[in-house]
Amino acid sequence: MQRPFGKRNDRSMTYNIAILGASGYTGAELTRLILGHPDMTLVALTGERKAGRAMAEVYPFLRGFDLPGLCRIEDVDFSGVDLAFCALPHATSQSVIKGLPRDLKVVDLSADFRLRDPEAYAKWYGKPHDAPELQAEAVYGLTEFYRDQIRTARLVAGTGCNAATGQYAIRPLLAAGVIDPDEIIINLITGVSGAGRSLKENLLHAEMSEGANAYAIGSTHRHLGEFDQEFSAIAGRPVSVQFTPHLAPMNRGILATVYVHGHAQAIYEALEQAYRDEPFIQMLPFGASPSTHDVRGSNYVHVGVAPDRRAGRASVFVALDNLCKGSSGQALQNANLMLGVKETTGLLGAALFP
Amino acid sequence: MQRPFGKRNDRSMTYNIAILGASGYTGAELTRLILGHPDMTLVALTGERKAGRAMAEVYPFLRGFDLPGLCRIEDVDFSGVDLAFCALPHATSQSVIKGLPRDLKVVDLSADFRLRDPEAYAKWYGKPHDAPELQAEAVYGLTEFYRDQIRTARLVAGTGCNAATGQYAIRPLLAAGVIDPDEIIINLITGVSGAGRSLKENLLHAEMSEGANAYAIGSTHRHLGEFDQEFSAIAGRPVSVQFTPHLAPMNRGILATVYVHGHAQAIYEALEQAYRDEPFIQMLPFGASPSTHDVRGSNYVHVGVAPDRRAGRASVFVALDNLCKGSSGQALQNANLMLGVKETTGLLGAALFP
Amino acid sequence: MQRPFGKRNDRSMTYNIAILGASGYTGAELTRLILGHPDMTLVALTGERKAGRAMAEVYPFLRGFDLPGLCRIEDVDFSGVDLAFCALPHATSQSVIKGLPRDLKVVDLSADFRLRDPEAYAKWYGKPHDAPELQAEAVYGLTEFYRDQIRTARLVAGTGCNAATGQYAIRPLLAAGVIDPDEIIINLITGVSGAGRSLKENLLHAEMSEGANAYAIGSTHRHLGEFDQEFSAIAGRPVSVQFTPHLAPMNRGILATVYVHGHAQAIYEALEQAYRDEPFIQMLPFGASPSTHDVRGSNYVHVGVAPDRRAGRASVFVALDNLCKGSSGQALQNANLMLGVKETTGLLGAALFP
Amino acid sequence: MQRPFGKRNDRSMTYNIAILGASGYTGAELTRLILGHPDMTLVALTGERKAGRAMAEVYPFLRGFDLPGLCRIEDVDFSGVDLAFCALPHATSQSVIKGLPRDLKVVDLSADFRLRDPEAYAKWYGKPHDAPELQAEAVYGLTEFYRDQIRTARLVAGTGCNAATGQYAIRPLLAAGVIDPDEIIINLITGVSGAGRSLKENLLHAEMSEGANAYAIGSTHRHLGEFDQEFSAIAGRPVSVQFTPHLAPMNRGILATVYVHGHAQAIYEALEQAYRDEPFIQMLPFGASPSTHDVRGSNYVHVGVAPDRRAGRASVFVALDNLCKGSSGQALQNANLMLGVKETTGLLGAALFP
Repeated sequence: MQRPFGKRNDRSMTYNIAILGASGYTGAELTRLILGHPDMTLVALTGERKAGRAMAEVYPFLRGFDLPGLCRIEDVDFSGVDLAFCALPHATSQSVIKGLPRDLKVVDLSADFRLRDPEAYAKWYGKPHDAPELQAEAVYGLTEFYRDQIRTARLVAGTGCNAATGQYAIRPLLAAGVIDPDEIIINLITGVSGAGRSLKENLLHAEMSEGANAYAIGSTHRHLGEFDQEFSAIAGRPVSVQFTPHLAPMNRGILATVYVHGHAQAIYEALEQAYRDEPFIQMLPFGASPSTHDVRGSNYVHVGVAPDRRAGRASVFVALDNLCKGSSGQALQNANLMLGVKETTGLLGAALFP
Repeated sequence: MQRPFGKRNDRSMTYNIAILGASGYTGAELTRLILGHPDMTLVALTGERKAGRAMAEVYPFLRGFDLPGLCRIEDVDFSGVDLAFCALPHATSQSVIKGLPRDLKVVDLSADFRLRDPEAYAKWYGKPHDAPELQAEAVYGLTEFYRDQIRTARLVAGTGCNAATGQYAIRPLLAAGVIDPDEIIINLITGVSGAGRSLKENLLHAEMSEGANAYAIGSTHRHLGEFDQEFSAIAGRPVSVQFTPHLAPMNRGILATVYVHGHAQAIYEALEQAYRDEPFIQMLPFGASPSTHDVRGSNYVHVGVAPDRRAGRASVFVALDNLCKGSSGQALQNANLMLGVKETTGLLGAALFP
Repeated sequence: MQRPFGKRNDRSMTYNIAILGASGYTGAELTRLILGHPDMTLVALTGERKAGRAMAEVYPFLRGFDLPGLCRIEDVDFSGVDLAFCALPHATSQSVIKGLPRDLKVVDLSADFRLRDPEAYAKWYGKPHDAPELQAEAVYGLTEFYRDQIRTARLVAGTGCNAATGQYAIRPLLAAGVIDPDEIIINLITGVSGAGRSLKENLLHAEMSEGANAYAIGSTHRHLGEFDQEFSAIAGRPVSVQFTPHLAPMNRGILATVYVHGHAQAIYEALEQAYRDEPFIQMLPFGASPSTHDVRGSNYVHVGVAPDRRAGRASVFVALDNLCKGSSGQALQNANLMLGVKETTGLLGAALFP
Repeated sequence: MQRPFGKRNDRSMTYNIAILGASGYTGAELTRLILGHPDMTLVALTGERKAGRAMAEVYPFLRGFDLPGLCRIEDVDFSGVDLAFCALPHATSQSVIKGLPRDLKVVDLSADFRLRDPEAYAKWYGKPHDAPELQAEAVYGLTEFYRDQIRTARLVAGTGCNAATGQYAIRPLLAAGVIDPDEIIINLITGVSGAGRSLKENLLHAEMSEGANAYAIGSTHRHLGEFDQEFSAIAGRPVSVQFTPHLAPMNRGILATVYVHGHAQAIYEALEQAYRDEPFIQMLPFGASPSTHDVRGSNYVHVGVAPDRRAGRASVFVALDNLCKGSSGQALQNANLMLGVKETTGLLGAALFP
């Protein structure tokens, strides 16, 4: 009953893609995006506990698409695979990737290769890294800032979705020297799909809907490791931001409200300059702020700046979709670069509204 | 700051499209879909009260796309337009379309041309029709059942979104004679975007979220007119279904639960037979039922059948997205047919989940 | 830091209450209700897996109230307990209640004692009953229809929340003989808290929000056993309804839309007659239908009737809160009767809107 | 068909209460609360545009309660009224209250009397005040901090709901001198009911659900006027906080995340000291943060403190229900004080969860 849709007839012209860990939300989102990509064909989908099942059983929204069944990683023939997305749980990813063919291009969506420093990894993830040599090789996947390295990378580490959102607000400001690096507060509201398809009490509809709360308070969120690594590198000295994420009853979307010390107009100009030619980053008019509603399901990022009534203080607002631009869309954008495909291919769709 | 995306460079190769009434939800959804359509270019967007504004102001999710600004209908030069979608309010549509060039292909999304019989129109809409000659000309837009007529039509009338959903369940069953035409109950749960971007108290988040209610009870919903027209034509005698729609706190999606008298297996087979070659209609396995979650943002329809414990009774379940397959996606599918483009072009994207 | 609130100083004047299984949603709802009850004091709360923890840890909304800590059932001294609510999982309940003191008044909220017939129990629950003698003793807890028996009962079986909702629509109609017992369809939309605080994938916010689906299709829902038992008893012959529940993204609330054959006006009158003196059941005007929004968090039931355009067909609508009137509120109402307290005590609060 | 519930039989023993502007959300919430208050009877409800209608028509959740019908203010006989709640729109309130009997106790829920300084009023509300003499008389209604003045006040001005939330975090810290007054950022997530039952596009379910956004950015929110007035008075010098509110898809609830410079432990102690004897304010354990889910529908406030990894920085979290403790519950608490009733009467109910 399954029919092939939307694919070139001559599959030899497309790149063969595997998704390791296709049964989670980022794997499903990758599947959705790649089904609409004219130059890629999904040839393998893995899911350890769901091996042997059709993807449409695990995700009925994929019913009717011509997709390989879920199998175990060990059953994948990687010889015909051009690139593998690795959407496995944190810590699992490093051991799996270590075992893959050395010449296979890999985009990892886990947290395993985001931190370059083994000690930072051990500090934030509570265990030594199993593949420190890969850790050194991996390129950090924030496309707009690592584009050239990603083009030639074999292994790209997808960023944390919260980490990406905060960086879009802050990186150009640190680079331009228009804010005080010691006075950065990243306040973030995030959708629930960021926690994955995991069975936790606080993720139940009955517990989530109709309310909001902070989590990972007290500087315990692991994405702080990414902020530290990246911001300190840009500033050329340690930068230690304050970061509080909040859960709100929405499935997709992250809104970062970043409080900084600096002149709002200079901040706006630094961002506008940095993102002028970026296909996915949209600057709002000065004084406007974005909504996650407007980027849902898309690879776009909306950025706004507002002044405080006190001179020298401002807020930067960034909205993106955690599953798409914050994770699977970013991964596909990077894969496009790694394969020599036009960077925006398969990613230009407008958000779903309402 | 706006950049052209995803369009062929040579626009002479694409069809020029206008959307009249682009500032409502169906207009915005059409815009989203057509931006991803390789053979169409939007050349005019109208919005009477919002004329002069950019589409991205009215719908910030469209920021960054290369779109014409909103203008008034009278300011559109229709000479270069190949096809117009008319997403205007009910009753407005008929007078506008009457004034359009006679050779312009039109897909109307309002209720104005759904009923062929002027008396039926007057009964359900409470006023005589202003363009009865067009009423006679218009082809009913339920693609799977009017495909050949739509191909050659100049004016196609989009169906009611609820009406479409119910018909997907029932038409093949009446045609195959496997159900009792006097015992049909259409129970329907619908998302709030079906009511449009209108300022009504009951559509506020505070009134809608976290609860459900029936509406248009007592056989007052206008889509009954469509059911009567279509079902009676198929059955060759009057068919008068019972129909109760309900509002639930979801933005998109319609789930029809249709109670019929007939043998479940015969019903399943009639549906399976009818939809076997349809690109957008997916039959679930016998005994399974669909979820609106799995079709959100897509043009797909999921259909299930379950037996009752009493022989001779069954339920048919149909899920679709009211804004897409129930309205704007259907309209685009019909426009593809009218323009000689491959029917599925621009419509094969998977649903957005979660 | 805990302070006693809202309690009589002289506790000897109140009834001592235990909740067995206080860590589920119905247990928490009972706790909420009893905290506002002037004649009851909670003296024991049990939770097997959470024994040793404070209730406010398990349910932070109860922080600040003077409550006993969670303990194991075996650690409760039942000698000072006047009445126990048993909010344990199905099947567990029967063995626990069998072991309680024979003179302890018990209101059971599980499914274990709803069906009087051991064979019906075995059929719907897939195993023989462990306490058939208690099954015979238990009084069915639909207060408005079993009030006199509940007053003198030792063991009352709370009804299914869906089962209660359907019965409020149908019982008076069967009793008055104003509908055809062979043509009853109960279509129901229910909130997610009815599934409890259980970790199931389909109950996650990401899976539930923004969509709807039917469940337990094909006559498999266990509450059918209650419908059969009760309706057949009233009609004096087998009655076999068709019943389809649906999940919608709301935490509380059940809306039953019941399709019947009968004269709408006669149906309205039969309901109005039956509920005229009921403190918790509100008849809406003829032709109006209720919303679950209007009963959230309360013990009220809203009932409406609408005619179909075909004479002899009608719809009955019933809205209630599944956790309150459908479960814990009903249980408290029954406990009031069993203890000789005014039936409405602690239950008259208005719904929470919005 | 209406029946009196939950009221003392001898009404001469209760205070007679009027609600002016009962048709908005705060009026409805007051009605709900007062129906459960043993010492108050509602004798008048006004609603200019809805005069002549029953309250249950405007708010069906109030069906069945014994309530006066909605009338116009000019039709109220204030001679028998002990206290009036004024839940009218901003600016309307001041002219209405000016016309009320001079000896009538009034709790105003509008913004009209929150600012004591006529110039500050003119600055934030864009017009001169119509009743500056009442402005001088009015007592600011943040109960925990103005309790003694409220007891003897004739006119109490309810605080802004956002303003209340921020003040619960900050007042004790400024008073104790444990934070830097120049480094206060109030980040706030608020539910949609705060905007009232007003027909605005951005409050539609289709626009609100499943997303979040900041609003009133750039120091434009009027509650800044309250922060300035109150914090400057406590600190004895101008204090100018940074404040950004966000809308999230929840009907009730405010979560303030307040970023301060100070030692977390000292901050916790100052708050714990301030709130130790407060019946409605609950301190969470150090390092824990509250959720709006846990205070929904209640008059409780949950307060948490978390340290940042950098010494000398901390976050304070405050959750409350905007309609209850942030508005109508606060008003009732103040009315209790003004009438000499026990302060907590009618307000001790637990939150509704889930």
